[in-house]
Amino acid sequence: MTEAQFIDRVHTRLQRLGLARGNGIVTGIGDDCAIFRQRGAAADLIFTADMMHEAVHFTWDEDPRIVGHKALTRSLSDCAAMGARPLFCLLSLAFPAEASQWVDGFYQGFLKLAKKHHVVLAGGDLSNTAKISCDVTVCGQVPRGRALLRSNARPGDRVCVSGPLGAAALALDTRRRFIPQPQLALGETLRERGVKCAIDLSDGLSLDLARLCLASGCAAHLNSVPVAKGASLQHALHGGEDYQLLFTLPKGLQPPPIAHIIGQIAKGPAGQILYQGQPLPVQGWDHFRP
Amino acid sequence: MTEAQFIDRVHTRLQRLGLARGNGIVTGIGDDCAIFRQRGAAADLIFTADMMHEAVHFTWDEDPRIVGHKALTRSLSDCAAMGARPLFCLLSLAFPAEASQWVDGFYQGFLKLAKKHHVVLAGGDLSNTAKISCDVTVCGQVPRGRALLRSNARPGDRVCVSGPLGAAALALDTRRRFIPQPQLALGETLRERGVKCAIDLSDGLSLDLARLCLASGCAAHLNSVPVAKGASLQHALHGGEDYQLLFTLPKGLQPPPIAHIIGQIAKGPAGQILYQGQPLPVQGWDHFRP
Repeated sequence: MTEAQFIDRVHTRLQRLGLARGNGIVTGIGDDCAIFRQRGAAADLIFTADMMHEAVHFTWDEDPRIVGHKALTRSLSDCAAMGARPLFCLLSLAFPAEASQWVDGFYQGFLKLAKKHHVVLAGGDLSNTAKISCDVTVCGQVPRGRALLRSNARPGDRVCVSGPLGAAALALDTRRRFIPQPQLALGETLRERGVKCAIDLSDGLSLDLARLCLASGCAAHLNSVPVAKGASLQHALHGGEDYQLLFTLPKGLQPPPIAHIIGQIAKGPAGQILYQGQPLPVQGWDHFRP
Repeated sequence: MTEAQFIDRVHTRLQRLGLARGNGIVTGIGDDCAIFRQRGAAADLIFTADMMHEAVHFTWDEDPRIVGHKALTRSLSDCAAMGARPLFCLLSLAFPAEASQWVDGFYQGFLKLAKKHHVVLAGGDLSNTAKISCDVTVCGQVPRGRALLRSNARPGDRVCVSGPLGAAALALDTRRRFIPQPQLALGETLRERGVKCAIDLSDGLSLDLARLCLASGCAAHLNSVPVAKGASLQHALHGGEDYQLLFTLPKGLQPPPIAHIIGQIAKGPAGQILYQGQPLPVQGWDHFRP
């Protein structure tokens, strides 16, 4: 079972139980963030949670400051993809008692990024475990009904990315350092310019674009993709963790200066991606693909 | 370093960085939940996160439905301790691909409890790891400025618990089943009756009462404690995971029918607990006590 199939199954169960939305949740499982609308409030709140586990997402010998930075980046990037401004986060952290120096470095990296974007650390949990892991929940704010959704793409929209792709995958291959940045200012700018649909590139263009197309019930035709310096086309098409934004531009909307137009949304089987006329295999990161 | 010392250190760092409150967070690290106040909204939102890890909080051979139930109970109990009504949760779950049947049982227990209290499952994260772990974030709602706080105890208040203690510790010792329930209706009732101060008994009376007293800058004198059937006084004083509520009653406030008055709040060294005139050692659960 793939991750998507697993999530679909949970979602079906929730719908049957009446627990998929309600109590203020207007968008639940299936987008980058959940959307919560409180009575009387001018803004919607968005929520996202992202885990990192030693031996899966990082190794013990990595610079803990970069691991801390990445742990917060993952959730802030989801927030950016909704066009939201982050307000606060919760950090749940599990580690062995003897890792206190490592943990100190982790907090350094985490809090430096939190400070940059003024994200309050409001709570969380601690545990003593053999291996290090963390879960970061971020709450952000977006004007009511204005969050960018995966499901808002329409045939005819141009498909854009916010920068060259593949830098993170290249760094992984060559064991060099790559420090991704959440595109928060860009997310808000896109929203203000009238963009309605975005997703962050966490698991690779082919997989994340397929998710966007599935959610929107359409296909996409790609012409060409900007490749980061030194990276291969494979890196750019399938490599994860770049944390650039992928978004669509409806007809008549001017592309922002940073936009690289890579193709367009088309009618066709939901989730199908063609690259230069050929079907593009989905090869990005899926935790549970057999 | 104990858990409390670790949290204090993080808190000091946050204050220096200006990230301990603000952006709507009016109460941050240090209570059962963080409190968020949104402009224009009639109610405050409260947030709490709680992790569970295989080999620390549960074992592989336990009934996964009970593990799922407990995973949500921990956060809902924090919500009850604030006098709040839960609205939605995020579930981050990590497990090995071959554990899919176990995970199915986990969801059964988790969602049965979610259904009982009508808690929407709005999102979360999934990971593929060698050992099972989870982190549950709950958002609840409480009338503005009315959340029960650890820091609201005052000398002269009576100290109460919501039921006999030690049942969970007894069950652990005798390897029997104990299924704790979050005291959500009671938390709301206490708030409506004018109670201002509560904490949930997750880590044992001695430790949780010391936390409450530390937060309120006072001491407590205990006379007697109701002991669950078959449990010892040690179980009742120090055993964790009962998830009863501990709260204080200011002078003039009638105790609700379920209240067991066990002592009173006193002037004295912050966090000091006397039991029948003798200092009570703090022996509850601390993840990082050396």
